[in-house]
This record gives sequence, structure tokens and C-alpha cells, in this order.
Amino acid sequence: MSEEAKEDAQRIEDLVIANRILAQQGVLDGFGHVSVRSAQNPRHYFMSQSRAPELVSAEDIMEYDEDSQPLDLQGRRQYGERYIHGEILRARPDVNAVIHSHSLSVIPFGISRIALRPICHMAGFLSPSSPVFEIREAEGENNSMLVLKKATGAALATKLGGSPVVLMRGHGNAVVGSTLQIAVFRAIYTEVNARLQSQALTMGEIVYLNEFEAANVDAINQRAIMRPWELWKRKAMGA
Amino acid sequence: MSEEAKEDAQRIEDLVIANRILAQQGVLDGFGHVSVRSAQNPRHYFMSQSRAPELVSAEDIMEYDEDSQPLDLQGRRQYGERYIHGEILRARPDVNAVIHSHSLSVIPFGISRIALRPICHMAGFLSPSSPVFEIREAEGENNSMLVLKKATGAALATKLGGSPVVLMRGHGNAVVGSTLQIAVFRAIYTEVNARLQSQALTMGEIVYLNEFEAANVDAINQRAIMRPWELWKRKAMGA
Amino acid sequence: MSEEAKEDAQRIEDLVIANRILAQQGVLDGFGHVSVRSAQNPRHYFMSQSRAPELVSAEDIMEYDEDSQPLDLQGRRQYGERYIHGEILRARPDVNAVIHSHSLSVIPFGISRIALRPICHMAGFLSPSSPVFEIREAEGENNSMLVLKKATGAALATKLGGSPVVLMRGHGNAVVGSTLQIAVFRAIYTEVNARLQSQALTMGEIVYLNEFEAANVDAINQRAIMRPWELWKRKAMGA
Amino acid sequence: MSEEAKEDAQRIEDLVIANRILAQQGVLDGFGHVSVRSAQNPRHYFMSQSRAPELVSAEDIMEYDEDSQPLDLQGRRQYGERYIHGEILRARPDVNAVIHSHSLSVIPFGISRIALRPICHMAGFLSPSSPVFEIREAEGENNSMLVLKKATGAALATKLGGSPVVLMRGHGNAVVGSTLQIAVFRAIYTEVNARLQSQALTMGEIVYLNEFEAANVDAINQRAIMRPWELWKRKAMGA
Repeated sequence: MSEEAKEDAQRIEDLVIANRILAQQGVLDGFGHVSVRSAQNPRHYFMSQSRAPELVSAEDIMEYDEDSQPLDLQGRRQYGERYIHGEILRARPDVNAVIHSHSLSVIPFGISRIALRPICHMAGFLSPSSPVFEIREAEGENNSMLVLKKATGAALATKLGGSPVVLMRGHGNAVVGSTLQIAVFRAIYTEVNARLQSQALTMGEIVYLNEFEAANVDAINQRAIMRPWELWKRKAMGA
Repeated sequence: MSEEAKEDAQRIEDLVIANRILAQQGVLDGFGHVSVRSAQNPRHYFMSQSRAPELVSAEDIMEYDEDSQPLDLQGRRQYGERYIHGEILRARPDVNAVIHSHSLSVIPFGISRIALRPICHMAGFLSPSSPVFEIREAEGENNSMLVLKKATGAALATKLGGSPVVLMRGHGNAVVGSTLQIAVFRAIYTEVNARLQSQALTMGEIVYLNEFEAANVDAINQRAIMRPWELWKRKAMGA
Repeated sequence: MSEEAKEDAQRIEDLVIANRILAQQGVLDGFGHVSVRSAQNPRHYFMSQSRAPELVSAEDIMEYDEDSQPLDLQGRRQYGERYIHGEILRARPDVNAVIHSHSLSVIPFGISRIALRPICHMAGFLSPSSPVFEIREAEGENNSMLVLKKATGAALATKLGGSPVVLMRGHGNAVVGSTLQIAVFRAIYTEVNARLQSQALTMGEIVYLNEFEAANVDAINQRAIMRPWELWKRKAMGA
Repeated sequence: MSEEAKEDAQRIEDLVIANRILAQQGVLDGFGHVSVRSAQNPRHYFMSQSRAPELVSAEDIMEYDEDSQPLDLQGRRQYGERYIHGEILRARPDVNAVIHSHSLSVIPFGISRIALRPICHMAGFLSPSSPVFEIREAEGENNSMLVLKKATGAALATKLGGSPVVLMRGHGNAVVGSTLQIAVFRAIYTEVNARLQSQALTMGEIVYLNEFEAANVDAINQRAIMRPWELWKRKAMGA
């Protein structure tokens, strides 16, 4: 077995764990999905068939090509919004994992004029603020709200730019990372930061992290990533 | 066994599951109730005897006629508010399932002047906004707050009109669907939307779903209904 | 065994269940306490030794006299605030059960100028509004916040008057009922109403229950009391 | 075995329990840490290797010297912010236990201009209000947000002064006590008080505890400390 094949086996194992963690931590409910890039064929990615993330297991994982077409569908249902993953992975070679969620506390930031910004060190990656994708700009007033077309996925990837998070108006968000562990960490603390920021907004002027602080803690947190992952995995997968 | 009899057996099984799901998801507590229309006799419906939804099992289900009278009471206690179900099912032939809940986040919208409106794609069915039933208009100032009379149930059905949800001032709400799965989905996301809308209201101007978006996602969500149902059923009924 | 002795055995069994329910439902944490009047000696009451409510069992229950002195202490620790119970039971012959809690959502109403009022039919008993006990009026500025003296308990009972609930500024509340089941119901829905009222207060003008509505639903709810009790007991005590 | 050695064995056992309690009660997530002073060598302290608090067991506990250097590292990873503990224990001989958390409801008070003050008797120790540590004053604009240097730990200890709690802007807080039980109690009720104060702030003018009340209840609560500890321990460690 090649090194890349071993790496892909590990990524698929972690992909299942990531699905379960995000459900257990309340970031994903019956909807949302997670993908990871293939090490053997970096234009391809792995993702579950259409299934609630808490129920995903290794047999549900399929390989998708660079156009978000499954290599071996076997009659299974697909996530309609797989283009979120395919188009972000195409646009961002630095990214290896993508999470799309309806993480609740984040939604109000997508529909109001207040920007999601980092108020605590766990969310330094949010600096200076997260872009918001308005699907009306891509599809017009009569749109489906969902990323069901490749072109809409490409527009979303353009809005994301070099950021780790893009909000989707009236819908949810997409979070990326160079590893599944980092993407999971960011998805969880994007939700936490949104909850805290919305509470703080009722209390007057806020001191946000400055750009030095945000960059410094983001680097530190990425090195400490296995500490919470070990805990989350234990809680999600059992002992 | 006729096709309709088989269908009714399935509906009763799903009715028990719906009760348990709504309790497990926090939409129902010790109160509230769920009904489903009979396939064999579409003027009739099935509903539990008076029991907390989390404890309902198949033996608790009774058949009610079009006047909300039980066919075979066997000395059991009934839900006093069964007219919610009987009168909505009479007025809405397109509806096969009715849920009455005290879903918490929704209550403030019934007592304030702010309309419950869809802020996220999971709740497109709420568009353009949900009507509010004021029982004082039906029964006067000295009313029981509850739908204990057929005429009050009829007034509630009139206020519901063609909508999927009607709020009941100082009390709760009623949600309908063409299937139990759709009604359950709507009851859960009515609660979610209310929670998010009330949070967003503290953050300035809100972009709501427009009518195209609402209609489009409602159609899409109805086709994806078994994905969350599978998860909710697993969580409510055990593996 | 006399009828009263059988009744007391039942009350003690229900007292243990009430402690566990209130912990399981989040009304009591490590603190707070519950009492029930003795049927055999209506000037006396039963209450646990000093112990977290979730851990109370039948062996912890002691009998207290009308001056809140234990009949058979056996070296056990007592709740310092037992005078809440003794003095309310003395002042209110219609009351047979008293709950003292630090129920979280209620505390802000005790320290602000906004009255706790019924916004939903489950909390009709709160009408027209709940009195607030300010211990500074009873003990002065240099007080202990807690009801550690008989005279302070008597002042609290005076403030309660004929109401079912009295808020205690910066501390918690006391809830009463003619039975343990009714007191438990009221403690749970006092918390729920407070949470919803504080949410509704951010949304503009509120329609509260009028006095007819409040009285009517209170009577109805008292008759339906065993439906949620059955559920809460099952959840708190196991199947 | 000397009395001090027995005492240290007990402290290490309680340190594991404290970690688990704070995780179970939601004060600590994958991050945060707890220390206790050594009885045998009061300049030293005990703390876990770098591990999520919920997973800490006795084998993870290491002894640190007065400069926060481990006596026997055995290749294990350390908490980068151990200087929080070392420097507070050095500055405060009255303190034997230190908790550093990212307790969620407290964070908005560290980044706004509203002081965290005691609104309920469980949090009398917060009187008159909690100081806020701004790391920019110690390290400048280009800082790491975290207490990774001894000098920063010393500056934090100076800001703490004689208080039981110091907020850390955009980061979390540190709570101290003369015992682990007292520090745990304070960490839990600091979170509760913050949640309630932020709710009460939306409801107009607040009556805070005065200084008599705060001091009196703090003394009383410290004597009742084993009642909630017994409960929290049971919930965190199993029966």
C-alpha cells in the first residue's frame, strides 16, 4: 500500500469521526456535510452519501472527481450541495477539508448587517471578519437558496477568497482547513464566537482581537489541535 | 388486508414515532399532541389517549370521528383540545397530519406584534408570515385559552387558512403537513426559526427569505425529508 | 395503619420524587429544598436533611415541628433556610407543599423593576404578578440574604400573602401548592414563563393573560396535573 | 506517610475530580486547567499534563516548582499557560487552588465596559466587581493573547490582587480559592452570575448585592461547600 493510499485510509477514518463530532457538538443536525481531499488524487475528494452526519460510517464514503461527480455511485443518494466542496477544493489548493453547516448562532450574522468578528482567542481565525455570500448575486431573486449548481459553488468559492469561513445568507456557512482537525476546530469555535458576539453586542462597545492577536493565536491553536480532538472523538465515538 | 388498512397501520406506527421525536427534540414537553388522518376513512383521524407524548405507544392510539368523538374510548382519558385536530382536518383536505405544541421560542411571537417570518432556508414554509389566533376573538375576554370547543377549533382552522402554521396567542401553535414526516419537520424548524429570528431581531435590520426562495426551498426540503427523519427516529426510538 | 399514616407515607414517597424531578428538570441544582405538610399532624412538615435534592432518598426525610425544629435529628445537618417552609405552612393553611429554588431565569425578575407576569397558559397561576421579597426590609442593609431566622421566614410569608409564588431579590423564589404535584408544576412553569417573558420583553409590547384567562387555565391545569407528573417521574426515577 | 504526604494524596485525588466536575458542569471544554498547591512543599503545585480536563486521571498529574518547571516531565506535553498558576500561587499565599477557564458567559464581560458584579447570593464572592486583565498592557499590541511567559503571569497576578476572580480580555478568566472545592464552586457560579447578569442587563436597572450581603453569603457558602461538591462529584465520576 502506497503512502498516499495509507494517508487516504486515515483521512476516510477521520472523515467519519469528523461527521460524528460535529453532530455531537451541535454544529450539524440532520443536515450539513463534510469532505476531505484525496491524497492519491488531490483533484478528488471524499464525502458521505446523502445521510445525516451522526449516522455516517465508512461504507457511506464515496470518492468524487473534480466536477463533483461520484466515481462509483451504486445507486446511492448524493448531497445536492456537493458543489460547495468541489468548487472550494478547486479554488483553494491550501485547503484539504471543507465543512458545510447550518450552525445556529452563525445564521443571524448572515442575515443582518453586523459582521462576524473574533471576540475570543479560540476564534482568531475569523479575523478581521467573515465574508457573506448572497446567493441573489449569483442566481438572482428567484434562486434555490442552496448550492445546487457548479457555477453557484464557484461563486461561493470566490466570495470565500482566502478566508477560513464564509457565511451563506439565510442558510449557513462553509468552513475550511488544511486538515480535518483544523476545519472541525474552526466550525465549533465559529459557532461559539457567534453566540458570544451576539451576547456581547447587547452590552455596548466591544474590544475585538486585533490582527496581531488573531494571527498569533491561530498559529498556536493549530499546534494544540489534538488536545480537543482527542476529547471530541472520545465523546462522539464512545470509549 | 386492504391497501388502506396497511397504510393506516403504517400511519399509526409513524404516529408513535412522531410523538417520541417531538419530545426528544424538545418541541413537546408533558403536553401537546399529534394526529394523523385515517386512510381508510379520511374523515376520521388517529390520536393518542391523554398521555405525555414521550410515553405514547401504539396501544394508546384511538380513532376519532369527524366530530372528534372517539370510536372506542374504553374509559380512557382524552386530550381536551382534540378539536384542534378534528376541525383543521375537516377544513384542510390537503392536510393529513396535525401537531399542537407549546414549542417555547415560538410563544413570544404569539404575544408580541412581531410576525414570525422565515429567516433561514429550513423554514421556507413560514413565508410570508404566520397568522396568529387570538382566542378572545372567538370566545371573548372570559375564555379558557384552550381549544375545548368545536366552534373554537373551527375558528382556529379559519385563522390557519391555507398556511402550514398558526400561532396561538399565549398558548402555542399548530403545524400541519401532508404527511407526518413533513409536519414533524415543520414543527422542529418553526421552533429553530423562532429562536434565530428573536436573536437576529436584536441585531438590526434582517433580510428575510423572499417568496421565490421560500417556495423553492420548501419544495426541496419536502423531497429530502427522510434524511432527518431517519436520524430523529434513531435518536427517539433507540437503535 | 391509620388513613393519615398511609397518607404521610405517600407524601414522603412523593417528596423524594419531587426532589428528583426538580433536579432533573433544572429547577434545583445543588441547593434548594422541598417540604410537604404532615397529614397526621398538620402543624408539622417533612423535609430532607441538608443534601443536594438530586441525591435525596426516603432515609433523608425528617419531621419538623411548627417552629421548624426537627423531632429526631440524629446528628444530621439541616437546611439553614427551613424557616421558609415552617413560616409559609403556618401562614397558609391552604398550602401543603413548599419549594424553595434558585431557578435561574426567575432571578433577573427579582433584581429588576419588571414584574413577573403570565405570558402563557401554563403559568396562569402567576396572575396578575408575583410579589418580590426584599430582605433589606426585614433585616436591614447588613443582612445574610438567606432566611436563617424565623422572623425573616414570617416576613417572607407575609410578602407571599395569598399568592402561589414569591420572588426573593438576589436569591431565588418560593412556590407553594395544595399538593406536591401542583407545587412542582408551578415551579417548573415559573421558570419557563420567566425565560419566555424575558425573551418577549426584547420584542416590544406584550399581551399578558387577563385575569379570567389566568384563573380558567389554572383550574384546568390543576386537573391535568398527573399527565406531566407521570412523565417527569419516569424521567427522574428511571423506568 | 507524613500528614503532608497524606494531604497531598488527597489533593491530587480532588484535583482529578475537580477537572472532571468542571468539564461536566460546562465550565471547561477541551481547554482550561486546574492546579492545587502542594502541602509538602507549598512553593510547588500539582497540575495535569496537557490534556482535556474531562480526560484527566491521576497518572496525568505532575509536580511543578515555583518557576512552573515540572520536576519529572517524562516527555509529556505541558499546558503552555502554566504561569497563570505558578505566578498566582506565588503572589497569593492564601490561595491553594487556581482554575483557568474559557467559561462562555463570562467572556462578554471581559470585552465590554460592563463590570461583572454579584447579582445573586451564590456569587457574593464577586463583590464589588471583578478586575479585567488586558494583555496589551503587559505585552503590547502584538501579543499572543495567552499567558505563555512568566512575566505575563506575574502581571495577571498583580491585576488579580486580592480578588477571587480576574477576567482575561478576549480569552477567559482565572478563579482562586483556599481549597479546590471553593475554587470549583466559584468557577461554576461565576459562569452562572455572568449569564444572569447579562440577561438582567436587558431589563433595566439592577439591584446588586451590597458589600455586607456579599461578604455574609460568601462566608455562609464556604461552610456549605460539601453539599454541592457531593452532587457534582457523583455526576462527574459516576456512582
